[in-house]
Amino acid sequence: MSHILTQKLDEEKVFKDPVHRYVHVYDKLIWDLINTSEFQRLRRIRQLGTSYVTFHGAEHSRFNHSLGVYEVMRRILEKFMTRPAWQEAMPGWSEEDRMLCLCAALLHDVGHGPFSHSFEKVFNTDHEEWTGKILLGETEINQVLKQVSDDFPHKVNEVIAKTYENKLVVSLISSQIDADRMDYLLRDAYYTGVNYGNFDLERILRVMRPHEEYAVIKYSGMHAVEDYIMSRYQMYWQVYFHPVTRSAEVILRKIFKRVKDLYDEGYDFNCQPHLLKGFLEEKMDLKDYLRLDESTILYYFQMWVEEGDSILADLCDRFINRRLFKYVEFNPSIHMRLYSELEQLFRQAGVNPDYYLEFESSSDLPYDYYRPGEEGERLPIHLLMPGGELRELSRASHIVQAVSGKAQTDHKIYFAQDLLEEREQAGCRDVVAKIRQALRDAEKSGAR
Amino acid sequence: MSHILTQKLDEEKVFKDPVHRYVHVYDKLIWDLINTSEFQRLRRIRQLGTSYVTFHGAEHSRFNHSLGVYEVMRRILEKFMTRPAWQEAMPGWSEEDRMLCLCAALLHDVGHGPFSHSFEKVFNTDHEEWTGKILLGETEINQVLKQVSDDFPHKVNEVIAKTYENKLVVSLISSQIDADRMDYLLRDAYYTGVNYGNFDLERILRVMRPHEEYAVIKYSGMHAVEDYIMSRYQMYWQVYFHPVTRSAEVILRKIFKRVKDLYDEGYDFNCQPHLLKGFLEEKMDLKDYLRLDESTILYYFQMWVEEGDSILADLCDRFINRRLFKYVEFNPSIHMRLYSELEQLFRQAGVNPDYYLEFESSSDLPYDYYRPGEEGERLPIHLLMPGGELRELSRASHIVQAVSGKAQTDHKIYFAQDLLEEREQAGCRDVVAKIRQALRDAEKSGAR
Amino acid sequence: MSHILTQKLDEEKVFKDPVHRYVHVYDKLIWDLINTSEFQRLRRIRQLGTSYVTFHGAEHSRFNHSLGVYEVMRRILEKFMTRPAWQEAMPGWSEEDRMLCLCAALLHDVGHGPFSHSFEKVFNTDHEEWTGKILLGETEINQVLKQVSDDFPHKVNEVIAKTYENKLVVSLISSQIDADRMDYLLRDAYYTGVNYGNFDLERILRVMRPHEEYAVIKYSGMHAVEDYIMSRYQMYWQVYFHPVTRSAEVILRKIFKRVKDLYDEGYDFNCQPHLLKGFLEEKMDLKDYLRLDESTILYYFQMWVEEGDSILADLCDRFINRRLFKYVEFNPSIHMRLYSELEQLFRQAGVNPDYYLEFESSSDLPYDYYRPGEEGERLPIHLLMPGGELRELSRASHIVQAVSGKAQTDHKIYFAQDLLEEREQAGCRDVVAKIRQALRDAEKSGAR
Amino acid sequence: MSHILTQKLDEEKVFKDPVHRYVHVYDKLIWDLINTSEFQRLRRIRQLGTSYVTFHGAEHSRFNHSLGVYEVMRRILEKFMTRPAWQEAMPGWSEEDRMLCLCAALLHDVGHGPFSHSFEKVFNTDHEEWTGKILLGETEINQVLKQVSDDFPHKVNEVIAKTYENKLVVSLISSQIDADRMDYLLRDAYYTGVNYGNFDLERILRVMRPHEEYAVIKYSGMHAVEDYIMSRYQMYWQVYFHPVTRSAEVILRKIFKRVKDLYDEGYDFNCQPHLLKGFLEEKMDLKDYLRLDESTILYYFQMWVEEGDSILADLCDRFINRRLFKYVEFNPSIHMRLYSELEQLFRQAGVNPDYYLEFESSSDLPYDYYRPGEEGERLPIHLLMPGGELRELSRASHIVQAVSGKAQTDHKIYFAQDLLEEREQAGCRDVVAKIRQALRDAEKSGAR
Repeated sequence: MSHILTQKLDEEKVFKDPVHRYVHVYDKLIWDLINTSEFQRLRRIRQLGTSYVTFHGAEHSRFNHSLGVYEVMRRILEKFMTRPAWQEAMPGWSEEDRMLCLCAALLHDVGHGPFSHSFEKVFNTDHEEWTGKILLGETEINQVLKQVSDDFPHKVNEVIAKTYENKLVVSLISSQIDADRMDYLLRDAYYTGVNYGNFDLERILRVMRPHEEYAVIKYSGMHAVEDYIMSRYQMYWQVYFHPVTRSAEVILRKIFKRVKDLYDEGYDFNCQPHLLKGFLEEKMDLKDYLRLDESTILYYFQMWVEEGDSILADLCDRFINRRLFKYVEFNPSIHMRLYSELEQLFRQAGVNPDYYLEFESSSDLPYDYYRPGEEGERLPIHLLMPGGELRELSRASHIVQAVSGKAQTDHKIYFAQDLLEEREQAGCRDVVAKIRQALRDAEKSGAR
Repeated sequence: MSHILTQKLDEEKVFKDPVHRYVHVYDKLIWDLINTSEFQRLRRIRQLGTSYVTFHGAEHSRFNHSLGVYEVMRRILEKFMTRPAWQEAMPGWSEEDRMLCLCAALLHDVGHGPFSHSFEKVFNTDHEEWTGKILLGETEINQVLKQVSDDFPHKVNEVIAKTYENKLVVSLISSQIDADRMDYLLRDAYYTGVNYGNFDLERILRVMRPHEEYAVIKYSGMHAVEDYIMSRYQMYWQVYFHPVTRSAEVILRKIFKRVKDLYDEGYDFNCQPHLLKGFLEEKMDLKDYLRLDESTILYYFQMWVEEGDSILADLCDRFINRRLFKYVEFNPSIHMRLYSELEQLFRQAGVNPDYYLEFESSSDLPYDYYRPGEEGERLPIHLLMPGGELRELSRASHIVQAVSGKAQTDHKIYFAQDLLEEREQAGCRDVVAKIRQALRDAEKSGAR
Repeated sequence: MSHILTQKLDEEKVFKDPVHRYVHVYDKLIWDLINTSEFQRLRRIRQLGTSYVTFHGAEHSRFNHSLGVYEVMRRILEKFMTRPAWQEAMPGWSEEDRMLCLCAALLHDVGHGPFSHSFEKVFNTDHEEWTGKILLGETEINQVLKQVSDDFPHKVNEVIAKTYENKLVVSLISSQIDADRMDYLLRDAYYTGVNYGNFDLERILRVMRPHEEYAVIKYSGMHAVEDYIMSRYQMYWQVYFHPVTRSAEVILRKIFKRVKDLYDEGYDFNCQPHLLKGFLEEKMDLKDYLRLDESTILYYFQMWVEEGDSILADLCDRFINRRLFKYVEFNPSIHMRLYSELEQLFRQAGVNPDYYLEFESSSDLPYDYYRPGEEGERLPIHLLMPGGELRELSRASHIVQAVSGKAQTDHKIYFAQDLLEEREQAGCRDVVAKIRQALRDAEKSGAR
Repeated sequence: MSHILTQKLDEEKVFKDPVHRYVHVYDKLIWDLINTSEFQRLRRIRQLGTSYVTFHGAEHSRFNHSLGVYEVMRRILEKFMTRPAWQEAMPGWSEEDRMLCLCAALLHDVGHGPFSHSFEKVFNTDHEEWTGKILLGETEINQVLKQVSDDFPHKVNEVIAKTYENKLVVSLISSQIDADRMDYLLRDAYYTGVNYGNFDLERILRVMRPHEEYAVIKYSGMHAVEDYIMSRYQMYWQVYFHPVTRSAEVILRKIFKRVKDLYDEGYDFNCQPHLLKGFLEEKMDLKDYLRLDESTILYYFQMWVEEGDSILADLCDRFINRRLFKYVEFNPSIHMRLYSELEQLFRQAGVNPDYYLEFESSSDLPYDYYRPGEEGERLPIHLLMPGGELRELSRASHIVQAVSGKAQTDHKIYFAQDLLEEREQAGCRDVVAKIRQALRDAEKSGAR
């Protein structure tokens, strides 16, 4: 066993944290990871992307959240590893397993880029892939992790990618009740000021028990878990899927799309998107990727407000100055041809639908029981009954049963209302009237 | 009277705010101001500059705070203007006065640039001056304010500049207990997670009374004000003057200084500081100033990590990757020649003291009584005694008396310890040993 | 209109309240009601009866809660009556209606006796009946209310009894989302320290709208109401129905039953239950009723620990010194004859089942839609949709639908385990073994 | 070493606590102590005596607080005894010392009677004396403690009485920053809703270090301790010494005095004060003392409202129905003969000053440095400086220095204003006018 696995700091380090009061660091390895440039970079990427346009408090970074996930994990393991006879409940558990949990918790989001949701869709990339490159490539993080052993970075990557052989380790960071989710619900609730996200973390930590391949919850803590599931449900609909936030996301996507389209056309940018070139030419390298963050992106946007291309300039101005798209809800099962109709009408009105019209759906599955053969992550939550057997949560809880397996989906049309008004005043009355009528019809269908 | 002064929104707008629960907007004018690009720009400037390197939670923006100051002011006025016979207590008070208070509260920080503390020192500028330019120049804010009357922007500016004739209006936004301070103490405490900043805002609002040229506090609320003064004291020393935060500020200043020095020397930047040119050539215009924000500055820093000039590249890398300067406290009355000694030793060791050594003092005056002929802002806080007369706070409160008029100052030396170590290993043992000895001596003097 | 309806205090009175921060009193009538001896008496009756044996924080009184309900009502009306054109939304609304709401909110619990749940079952009485007597009888409260008009006390009583003609007034204090429930959920959560009871009161108040006979909720606030319904559900199962609390309640009932049985038998109490005589002889008068409170009852219990009758002495000792009954859950549909079997076995073992065995069920209906012809209180909650029509909550919310109309019931057997052990050691091994087996069988059925 | 010192419960027990979230019990001995009847009795004695008449939330019991002190102590020891090389910092520390700390923390208030402040003054008794009797007498607590060893109860008593030889043990429960104070400040703040009492307990626990005979505070935590001292100061003046609370206390004392006077005169009580007889005859025994609690006292008061003696009946009615005495502040150094003058005037007016007039002083010393030869408890708080030496707190902190050693005293006259009015209307105009003038003069002197 490598010495670094058990090497403690001379004195514990603490971070004052508004959510967990304090984040405690005892291990030298963790401290070194926090101080790498790749981890510090997370300070320049907001945890909730565009949510700050809706909830002005939501300006916290992924750095903030990552420390929190680490702290939740640390507390889970502290509980697990100080109970009497804990080794019997966790056979074969080693110091390396403990450190894998902590490192995976700290680093699970390290591959995120700026405004990932929008970014990844346009540039066809994926933050999980970049996480792997950061862990395994020529980075400070890789150097720190390698102190344990040559294959330790690889193992951390496997834990984050959910392919690691010790399933208990994996489940603590990726399951329906894991350190990641528990931190982000509490944290996002705190920063937005929305109190729906609160649940009793301390109680959940106390009723969690390691049980073979995952952690289970003592039956006496069922209500705390119900409350956690409901918090999750509420946060999704109240915060994460807020239509104003999504409107800003739509504009982001349109900006990236316009940049891509212009680049492909050979447009000569006044302000060159140097740091995006890798993506535009589909050969992004790690070093450039690590320089991409929200300050970089916002710098470009500010410059492009003055760009010659009027669409790019307009979209950037919208994002920077919060002139967002309007939206109506609609029901796609009734209006299957709505998009093509609207697209055509927009074109007739002289408003480019490629950049000023978008259909967007949000969907959430607050909890799911186990469905053999479907996506692996959805491990159900199990209750440990007084007699010792396990029971799947939705079979014990009416509340959870009610939301279990039922995805809720919401469909919205986003569009530049101000442009329609401009076109109307410029004389296109009939077409704009038709668009308005179509939107009203759509909205009626959406009012369930 | 202009119609816009009393024009209400069809429906109140609310912002979810973690500190005040909700920020309420009823006036159309306020809503329009919030939506101007100059106000939205405050989203890209952090309230606490470099504090986030010490308190990871302190990532909130000036937008966040500005809404909060507005809300505190709104509540103060709501209290004042709904009490029985309030007009007698506020003779001549008009709707315009009310709106001046709200606008000044909302806009008082609108001139801030990125990392103002450091920025302003190097570039010899001042955010208050820019506030004036934004209010009076060709801006969206100016357009909105002018709807009231041609001289309304000017009046708002006078309120913020403390020169407006109605002193009560001025004092609500600038005094020793004003809407600005009350918001920032609560807000900065919330985001950092440090609970020293808490005091009972609701109680203070209830015991505040307009009284001729300022607001006074009913005697029964004295303890709430004591608590507010102590909160202020604690926040200064625990948060605002934290040495790690100041270390990051020192580096910022050194970066700006290096840019200026290089520009003056005619250095050819690989990545040109276009948006800073106005300052470098001492002819900054408003439009460029408004494009300066933290994303712009951080973009430059990231680019300059690769700049040819090794000092600039190193300093930017330090800031971006949080490799800060070390510090020791010292007592300047004992070591008056310390700076020149250290400067010389640094030069001998081959470490440029212009960029890698700094003396910095922080000083706070938690509360002050009135000193005729001294700086105007320090209006004392007055208590309204049961009999009706006024008494200056420090004469009634032992606690406040104890801190009244007593500035606390702390002096620190910041320096690049890692460079000293490098030089030591490169052979400069004697000089570095002398430097270390001088720092140890300084530290002893600093341990009061 | 009586002058007293609009008479304000010279200066507002405030109560520091940990749940609502401050309770504000502006009306002289309210202030006078608070100072009556009948209202002050509520200080000596705990809000949550025996819950304090489980949650040591739950020591707050009905006085505490009653002020809170008043404050919530005051805020509801403040919102309702300051919106533009509010009179159109509340046609015919008068100052008297406003005062009826406030008085009913303040006084709705004034008839409660000590440990009402247990007390009322044994003595066949009902706190609502006593509320009526207090409002209408020779009391200070009646005197204060009569200042408005001779029939004002009667009207307040009708509001509390839900028979008042203005249904909007009634619904604000008695419906599925009323001032009473909103206060007790928040308050009981605060004092127990259980955070399940939290919901966003301020948001609910903002989205509540008067609409003919009741208050409706704007659709945009649906999630806040969902959260409120879930809080209610959680508080019922986590706090109000906690089996340890109910065990203490069972003992209380047994004590009262024993007192009644002894009194009927003509037993000569060492310490006479003077203040209970009215109930024991079924002719309780108001004056005596008002002297009954928890200190009186606890005094008797302490005295009776030394009473000659060993059952009464033992039961009182159990309550005072928290030696509670054990419990097992069971399923009555499987074990319909369980009670008679256990009763017989207890008798065989020499343990009196009348005092040492109890079957108890708790049942909660978190929310119900409207069922014509069933109990009137269950007015459904209606959402006010964007188009203006109403929609019943459970038809819009999956979560609420899941719990709507579904009573959850839990059945438990409470018994004196220590007596069984005593009997076992005294030789009754076989019978006690049979009892244990029966309890184990019952428990198995209860584990659903 | 006795086995019981290290015997753990099979499963930890937790109490949900609103202040510390959870109180954790691991030791069987502690669990057994909590379940004794003498400890359960603390549920029937309020922590803050009559404060609930001012702050309706302050209804929490000494049981509540005692669990809290235990929990703070448990956390202090957990910190102390898990640091690396902790044994070197606490030479000779044994399991018995640990258990002494926990038991003393839990039991330090166990001797309190109902409304101790008032009670003890009249009956010339002292709760600390009763604590000793409970620990050493024939009680369940004594039985539980004796399981450790025959002299363990004696040792616990010594710790509480501050005479135990291990001064570190003593100081953790009795010093200027001890587990008792830290709990009550937080707890009383929570229940009253006054937020002045908040300070960062977790931080203080982290910077506390055992150092020979007491715990010291690392210099880096000085501000947290300043905040604690200020919290203490504020709580004293805002809550503990609130004049309305003291008015209720004055009435309590008058009731007890009247009972004593009547008993001494041989008055035949309609409702005999059986449980007080021991005190009235100066031979109180432990068994009776343990039956005295607030329910007993309040029962007597309710009965005595109907007592033949009009003074006793009136005083009890005042207490029960919150008809309190009025008060004015005065300056005793100016009005030394005021009491005798007023006494005489009251007699002339026909109002008995023995029961309807009282002079009362409250005095608080927020912090004190060490004064050799004065009362032992005032051990100063020491800071552990970076270099390792100790510095007394008030020498390092301006804020603490300002309040150090400076007792603040406030003098008030309490009197039955309503009786004066009655006498006035009954014709005693001149005398009452003189009384009023004297009170006005006194008040003027009191307005400092």
